Amino acid sequence: MATQASATSSRAGSQLKTPKGTRDWVGQDLLLRDRIFQTISDILKRHGGIPLDTPVFELRDILSEKYGEDSRLIYNLENQGGELCSLRYDLTVPFARWLAMHSNVKQVRRYHIAKVYRRDQPAIARGRLREFYQCDFDIAGVYDPMIPDAEILRIIVEVFQAFKLDVTIKLNHRKILDGLFETCGVPQEKLRLISSSVDKLDKLPWAEVKKEMVEEKGLSEIVADEVGKYVLQKGAMREMINVLKADEKLHANATVKGGIEDMELLVSYLEALDVDRIVSLDLSLARGLDYYSGLIYEVIPQIKDTQVGSIAAGGRYDGLVGMYGKQPIPCVGISFGVDRIFTLLDTQRKKGTSDISHETEVYIMAFGGKEFDGLLLERMRVARQLWDVGIQTEFAAKVKPKPQQQFNASDSALLAVILGQEELEAGQTTSVTAVYEMIGE
Amino acid sequence: MATQASATSSRAGSQLKTPKGTRDWVGQDLLLRDRIFQTISDILKRHGGIPLDTPVFELRDILSEKYGEDSRLIYNLENQGGELCSLRYDLTVPFARWLAMHSNVKQVRRYHIAKVYRRDQPAIARGRLREFYQCDFDIAGVYDPMIPDAEILRIIVEVFQAFKLDVTIKLNHRKILDGLFETCGVPQEKLRLISSSVDKLDKLPWAEVKKEMVEEKGLSEIVADEVGKYVLQKGAMREMINVLKADEKLHANATVKGGIEDMELLVSYLEALDVDRIVSLDLSLARGLDYYSGLIYEVIPQIKDTQVGSIAAGGRYDGLVGMYGKQPIPCVGISFGVDRIFTLLDTQRKKGTSDISHETEVYIMAFGGKEFDGLLLERMRVARQLWDVGIQTEFAAKVKPKPQQQFNASDSALLAVILGQEELEAGQTTSVTAVYEMIGE
Repeated sequence: MATQASATSSRAGSQLKTPKGTRDWVGQDLLLRDRIFQTISDILKRHGGIPLDTPVFELRDILSEKYGEDSRLIYNLENQGGELCSLRYDLTVPFARWLAMHSNVKQVRRYHIAKVYRRDQPAIARGRLREFYQCDFDIAGVYDPMIPDAEILRIIVEVFQAFKLDVTIKLNHRKILDGLFETCGVPQEKLRLISSSVDKLDKLPWAEVKKEMVEEKGLSEIVADEVGKYVLQKGAMREMINVLKADEKLHANATVKGGIEDMELLVSYLEALDVDRIVSLDLSLARGLDYYSGLIYEVIPQIKDTQVGSIAAGGRYDGLVGMYGKQPIPCVGISFGVDRIFTLLDTQRKKGTSDISHETEVYIMAFGGKEFDGLLLERMRVARQLWDVGIQTEFAAKVKPKPQQQFNASDSALLAVILGQEELEAGQTTSVTAVYEMIGE
Repeated sequence: MATQASATSSRAGSQLKTPKGTRDWVGQDLLLRDRIFQTISDILKRHGGIPLDTPVFELRDILSEKYGEDSRLIYNLENQGGELCSLRYDLTVPFARWLAMHSNVKQVRRYHIAKVYRRDQPAIARGRLREFYQCDFDIAGVYDPMIPDAEILRIIVEVFQAFKLDVTIKLNHRKILDGLFETCGVPQEKLRLISSSVDKLDKLPWAEVKKEMVEEKGLSEIVADEVGKYVLQKGAMREMINVLKADEKLHANATVKGGIEDMELLVSYLEALDVDRIVSLDLSLARGLDYYSGLIYEVIPQIKDTQVGSIAAGGRYDGLVGMYGKQPIPCVGISFGVDRIFTLLDTQRKKGTSDISHETEVYIMAFGGKEFDGLLLERMRVARQLWDVGIQTEFAAKVKPKPQQQFNASDSALLAVILGQEELEAGQTTSVTAVYEMIGE
C-alpha cells in the first residue's frame, strides 16, 4: 500500500490520488525513513552539525541562475498577488541565502533534512520522485585547503557504514575539468554545456555523448575526440594524480595544476582518515549544477542489479554566497539522497504483515454476566490513570464491547487489564501501580 | 536573529529575505520547536497514534469545496503543464483523501506533524504565519457516540499539562448551532454564512457581528436579535445543558435535541476522564470550516496579556471522507497550533547567549616548539578513532593552528585532547579508550 507512488481510484469528476511523483508515507515505511534520518543526523551531530530549517518556498529571484539547464525543473507558485515564489529545488541555495542574510555568521556546520521539489520524470523503482527528501550537511567558513572537504568524505564513509551499504565515492575537481576542457580547445562559453554532456557518461556510451557535443552543442569533432581521451579515465587517487602530472600539456595549464595540488593534499588527508580505499578519481564526473567551484563527488552503491544511481553527492561552492551581493563564504557540502537510500534498504528488509499496525502497552477490557453494562466509565477511569503515568493505553470505544472483539484488539498488547463486573462490585481491584510494574517500566 | 520572520537585506536587483509570512528555524528556536513536537507525539503514541506523512501539495480538486470562505487563502502552484496542484491548507483534508484511497482501512488513529500554507495576513507577535506547523491527531472509524471525542479532549488536557500551560476548552456542537439557527428563523441557505459571522464573536462585539449579519449577509434584524439571545451564552457543561433543555422552543427542534443528547453523554465521559473542569460550552463557537458535522472545540490559553488566540482546535467531520465518492468514515480530530504554542513557550524561556552554539564532546589540539608542523594528520587519525566509537569530535581545520585559537574553540568541549609534538616523538600517547572513559560514555 504505502510504497505505491500515486495509487489511483477514480471518482466522479476527478481522480483520487497524490500528485504525480509524490507519495504518502505511513507505517513501516515511515518508521524506516525516520530511522534513516536519525542515523544520519546522529553522525552529523558527532561532527558538530547544528540543524537549520527553511521555508518550503523561496523568493523566485533567490533560485534563479543557480541551476543551469535544470532550472526548467523548478516548481513555481502561481502569481496570486504579492511576491513571486518557487518551491525549493535543493537545500544548498536556501542555506547560502541564510548565510548571506546573517553576515555575523563566519563559520558554521549546519544540517538540514527536508523535502525538495523537481518537475522531473518520476521513476519509482529507482527512488526518483518529484517530491523527495534530501539530507544536507555543509561546512561554511575560511579554513586551510581541503581539510573540511576531507571531513565531508569521512562523514560519507561513516553514514554508509552505519547502513551497512558498500559504496564507491567518485571524485573530481572542477579546476581539473575546466582546465582540461581549455587545454583541449573547448571555447570558454561552452564550458558548462560540454561539462553537462560529459556528466552523462555514467548512463550513455561515449559515442552518444560525443554526438550530443558535436551535433547539439556545436563542438568541433577534433576537440570532442581530444576531450574523450581524458574523460574516460578513472582510477585510484594516487595513481590518477600521477597520470595527470605526467601529461605535460595538461600540467602546463595553471587551472589544472591548482586542481592537482588540491588533490595531492586531499589524498594525504583521506589516508589519515581511512577513507582513501573507496575513492575513485573519475574524470567524467562533472555534476550538473552551476555553483560548484572545486572538489565534486558522487556516492555510488556497490550492489548488483540495482537501478538506483548515486545516493549522495556534493562538492565545494565557494562563490554561491557571494552571488547574493554579500561577502563570499567558502562552503563545502554533501547531500544524502534519503529516498534512494530508503529504496535500497527497503528491498533488503522483509516486509511486515501489516503496514499500519502499532504496538499497545496496555489494553483495558471489561466482562460481566447478564446485567453487564460495559463498564465504560470504569474503563475510562483506569485508562486515565495509566495515561497519567505515561503508559500507552487503549480500550474499545464501545459502550458494551463484545468479548471476542476485545480479545482480538488486545492481541498486540503487552498486557491486558480485565475489569470484571462482579469483582468490581465486590471491591476486588488491582492498583495502577501494579500494572505499571507488570509492564516493567 | 532566528525569531525575525522576514529579515531583509537589500542587494542589487532583488531582496535577500524569506518570503512574506515565512521564517527560518535555527539554534535554540529549533531545539524548542523539536521539543514541542517530541512532547506532543509521545502523548499521541500513548493513545495509539501512528504517524502519516503526505505530499506538501495535493491535486487542486482534492482541496476544493472543503474550506468555505477561506478557500481564497489557498496557495496554488503555477500551471507548468500537467496536473493542477495546490499547497495543503491543513492536514485534515490530506488525511481524508488518504482514507478514501485506502478503503481497507476501517479504523485508524493517525498523527501528522507538518507545515501547512495559508495566504493570510501574517501577524508575528500572535504566532500567525503563512507557512506554519500543525500537529494533527484524528480518530477514524465507527465507534459508539462521543467516546473517541472524549478521548481527544483528554489528549488536549495531557498535552497542555505537559507544557504547563493553563487552558480553557471552548466547546459547541454543530447540531445545536444549526438547530438553533433554524429555530430562530435563519434561512437554510444562509446557515454557514451566519455561522461564520457568529464565529467572530471572540474578536468583535455583538453590535458589529449583528451589523455584518444584517447589512452584508441580508439577515432580517428580528432574526438576528433572536440569534443574539442564544449565541452570547456560555458556561459549564451541565449548567448549559440544563439551560438548553429548559428552552422549550429549542428543545422541540430535533437537531438541537440530538446535539443535547450527545452533550449529556459527553459530559459523563469527561467527568470519568477528569477533563470536565476546564471545559466551557460556548454557543458562539462556530469554526469556519465547512466540513465539521458534530462536536467542535477550540483551546484558549489562560495567560494575561497574550495576543495569541486559540492554540488548538478541531471537531468531528463525519462527511468529509464520503465527499471523495467513497464509503464515509466518521472522524474526529484535533489540530495543535505548534507555532503559537512555540510563541507562548518562547516568551517564557530566557534567551540563550548564542543562537547557533552547540556542545562538543572532544576537541583535539596540537602544540609544539619551533619545529611544530601542526600535526594535522595526527589530529585526523585521533579524530577518526573517536568518531569510530561515536564520540562527537572536532579539531581546527588549519594546517598550523595558533594555540589561542585552539583554546578558544575548545572552551565549549567536555574534554580537550592535546597532542604534543615532543611527547608524540617520544612515543608517549594516550589510548582512545582512555578518552572514551574520561568523557564517561
